[in-house]
Amino acid sequence: MRNFISVHDVNDINALVQKALSYKANPFQDRNLGADKRIGLLFLNPSLRTRLSTQVAARNLGMEAIVFNVDKEGWALEFEEGAIMSGNTVEHVKDAAPILGSYFDILCIRTFPSLKNRDDDYSELYIKQFIQYCGVPVISLESATLHPLQSLTDIITITENRKAIQHKPKVVLTWAPHVKPLPQCVANSFSQWINAWGETDFVITHPEDYELSEAFTKGATITHSQDEALKNADFVYVKNWSTFKDYGKIYENDPAWMLTDEKLKQTNNAKVMHCLPVRRNVELSDEILDGSNSAVTQQASNRVWAAQAVISEILRSL
Amino acid sequence: MRNFISVHDVNDINALVQKALSYKANPFQDRNLGADKRIGLLFLNPSLRTRLSTQVAARNLGMEAIVFNVDKEGWALEFEEGAIMSGNTVEHVKDAAPILGSYFDILCIRTFPSLKNRDDDYSELYIKQFIQYCGVPVISLESATLHPLQSLTDIITITENRKAIQHKPKVVLTWAPHVKPLPQCVANSFSQWINAWGETDFVITHPEDYELSEAFTKGATITHSQDEALKNADFVYVKNWSTFKDYGKIYENDPAWMLTDEKLKQTNNAKVMHCLPVRRNVELSDEILDGSNSAVTQQASNRVWAAQAVISEILRSL
Amino acid sequence: MRNFISVHDVNDINALVQKALSYKANPFQDRNLGADKRIGLLFLNPSLRTRLSTQVAARNLGMEAIVFNVDKEGWALEFEEGAIMSGNTVEHVKDAAPILGSYFDILCIRTFPSLKNRDDDYSELYIKQFIQYCGVPVISLESATLHPLQSLTDIITITENRKAIQHKPKVVLTWAPHVKPLPQCVANSFSQWINAWGETDFVITHPEDYELSEAFTKGATITHSQDEALKNADFVYVKNWSTFKDYGKIYENDPAWMLTDEKLKQTNNAKVMHCLPVRRNVELSDEILDGSNSAVTQQASNRVWAAQAVISEILRSL
Repeated sequence: MRNFISVHDVNDINALVQKALSYKANPFQDRNLGADKRIGLLFLNPSLRTRLSTQVAARNLGMEAIVFNVDKEGWALEFEEGAIMSGNTVEHVKDAAPILGSYFDILCIRTFPSLKNRDDDYSELYIKQFIQYCGVPVISLESATLHPLQSLTDIITITENRKAIQHKPKVVLTWAPHVKPLPQCVANSFSQWINAWGETDFVITHPEDYELSEAFTKGATITHSQDEALKNADFVYVKNWSTFKDYGKIYENDPAWMLTDEKLKQTNNAKVMHCLPVRRNVELSDEILDGSNSAVTQQASNRVWAAQAVISEILRSL
Repeated sequence: MRNFISVHDVNDINALVQKALSYKANPFQDRNLGADKRIGLLFLNPSLRTRLSTQVAARNLGMEAIVFNVDKEGWALEFEEGAIMSGNTVEHVKDAAPILGSYFDILCIRTFPSLKNRDDDYSELYIKQFIQYCGVPVISLESATLHPLQSLTDIITITENRKAIQHKPKVVLTWAPHVKPLPQCVANSFSQWINAWGETDFVITHPEDYELSEAFTKGATITHSQDEALKNADFVYVKNWSTFKDYGKIYENDPAWMLTDEKLKQTNNAKVMHCLPVRRNVELSDEILDGSNSAVTQQASNRVWAAQAVISEILRSL
Repeated sequence: MRNFISVHDVNDINALVQKALSYKANPFQDRNLGADKRIGLLFLNPSLRTRLSTQVAARNLGMEAIVFNVDKEGWALEFEEGAIMSGNTVEHVKDAAPILGSYFDILCIRTFPSLKNRDDDYSELYIKQFIQYCGVPVISLESATLHPLQSLTDIITITENRKAIQHKPKVVLTWAPHVKPLPQCVANSFSQWINAWGETDFVITHPEDYELSEAFTKGATITHSQDEALKNADFVYVKNWSTFKDYGKIYENDPAWMLTDEKLKQTNNAKVMHCLPVRRNVELSDEILDGSNSAVTQQASNRVWAAQAVISEILRSL
């Protein structure tokens, strides 16, 4: 593996999942794999789980991890080719990236979308420019349209829980209400990975106008009826996203889309998943998050093993 | 020791002090005690000494220390049970704490009081929720009402300096002026520890209306006459705090309460203590801070050994 | 070496350059030199290259490096002797520095000038107070008037590139336009080091009114004609600075001073240098930064080896 930006960077999803589960069983089995190697974690946006789990994963592999909050400890970067930099941006990615690449063996980058201009966001300009100019492998810590470490974690968590399920599991991604417009990243990425994995019946449900890009959802069943989607579901992934077509908007925010215990009765005693952070009693009810169907803590804990599997694959390819 | 939140978590204060002094003499004696263990330092508020001394202490024990500025690098946490999270808080402690507990072997947390609602602050809701939900030992880096690592440090410093004193030392905690309302934490905690220690004559002096909670001061002599308190004092601890009864206010701020060399003449050549940061020439005069009676640098340096003693006790109990 | 604040702390520039190049060839040759030693990196201002390269350098030497963003993770420091601290500053350097010195074996500090009061800035009050009160060696990560780690890096880079040049190299420092008033640090420091090094023909060119302090430039040829300066230059160092005489101003900002490929034709195929961050198409054109004459990435990469050479010298003197 050279970079880890989307599912397309993965040859064998199940092998990567098994690698992660192997690290979960024995975290220090490759404690010297990253000796004398350094990983830089660059954040252009806030982070809790991604930040900490990636640090822990790197150190389990014996790597030095250095965090840099680009915007807060540094300054605003410019990404536009040919820009006359007389405004607020202080340094061009063309100048910063190769230097960061000279300090680190692997670079990890979090860079959210603007939600202003869809073409810009969906071109993944920022992370692609880092890859183009830094000269070392790049791991996405969530980019403008995708969140692959989250999706790998999600499939690890489904794999752990499907042991109890004899049939092909039904996985439902359901839109949920929120208080502000969020990126489509987690939903796009989950759809992309579940489709590429191909081991589930995959259903996406959301209100009208909240269609995701077909580039990621193609292959899934899509319905505007949450009740229909939830029927006999084994896993329900709850997530808000803003509109894709008329980009970055909130068209409707019907609280009826919040998952509750009552709705969960329609499922096959489904595990409920969420990438966190979650707005309690807006996206998901207390009763679900505090109940035995919730898999959100298991998911978040698995972030360490997903990151460790990915970093180890890249280290082996150096 | 499971958690370190107050003096009640300590079986034997003097044994803990001796452990700290042993680390001061030989910092690396337990350099492998924390091998393959991780400590997370979570800051919801600023910190200099606490932040750095705890990192140094953990690393002296061979632990990996990872700092996370929760508010600046992450987002605002919700602590209210049942909250409908449609406002500014992004993640509930019930969701964040168990995940942090899965990433770390020990969690350290700094969380200041609001100074708005006394019942809320004195219930220690924030740190108690972290303890309840994180599943690993918690060390307070200063909570809403207490600062136990500071108090342990203070007793270490008194122990070092009492060698020269043959009698039972007289310890005075004196209120000092300040420019803004401060928590009662350091004063509460110092009172609690000195009372529990029981090896000194302990006097607290402050203007009227600045009574601290009896829960912490009971056992001390309390007087509104600073002159009376200072007489023959061996140690003078200088600290501002806001009002407890009519909560979080500044009623009077008489500069006459600032300790000076002139006042110090009434003491038994007392060592002057302060937890820092100190507002020079507001709380304490330059002449005292720059003179030979000041123990403030010794105190702050001892923060490392206090933290190291506490972390080592918790590591041994894992 | 005790401190590293300016060229005056260096006995033999070429020996230090060779030490740095030796680390570039073999980064881990002294991997245990800093064992059980700690270096504190204190930032009162933003930083990218300096922050990361110094961390990497310290760790190459086996030292623990701890970063502290003084203003963001702590609070504002007071530097004025005798200040009555009833304003915005929370802690005096006289109190903070000795404590930081007790936590670390070496302190590194970045502290920019105000550009408000020239006498204050040029007295280097901040870094001098740290040195006076902290009790351990201090390395400048850029102070009010100088940036010695940058200048050492610059001479390393010139040394690497002069191998191809048979004659005494002509080095030109040219002023460049910018969008806001910048410190004179990099220009002062480069002038000081190049003059002390004495191995080049050194020319400084800038518009009228942009004279630098003679304390640093004395020995250089100074001209207001950029064309004259560039003629047959082997190295062109491009940098903006604000006015020194009428302090901290922008008097003129003629875009004609921006270096372009056309102007570069007058040189001896010169290497173009800049400390970064650079405002593209304001200070330097894309064509130069993206072309084969640019040495800016090489420079920035060399920051690691400059820092490693300096830290190793100080470690040996402890």
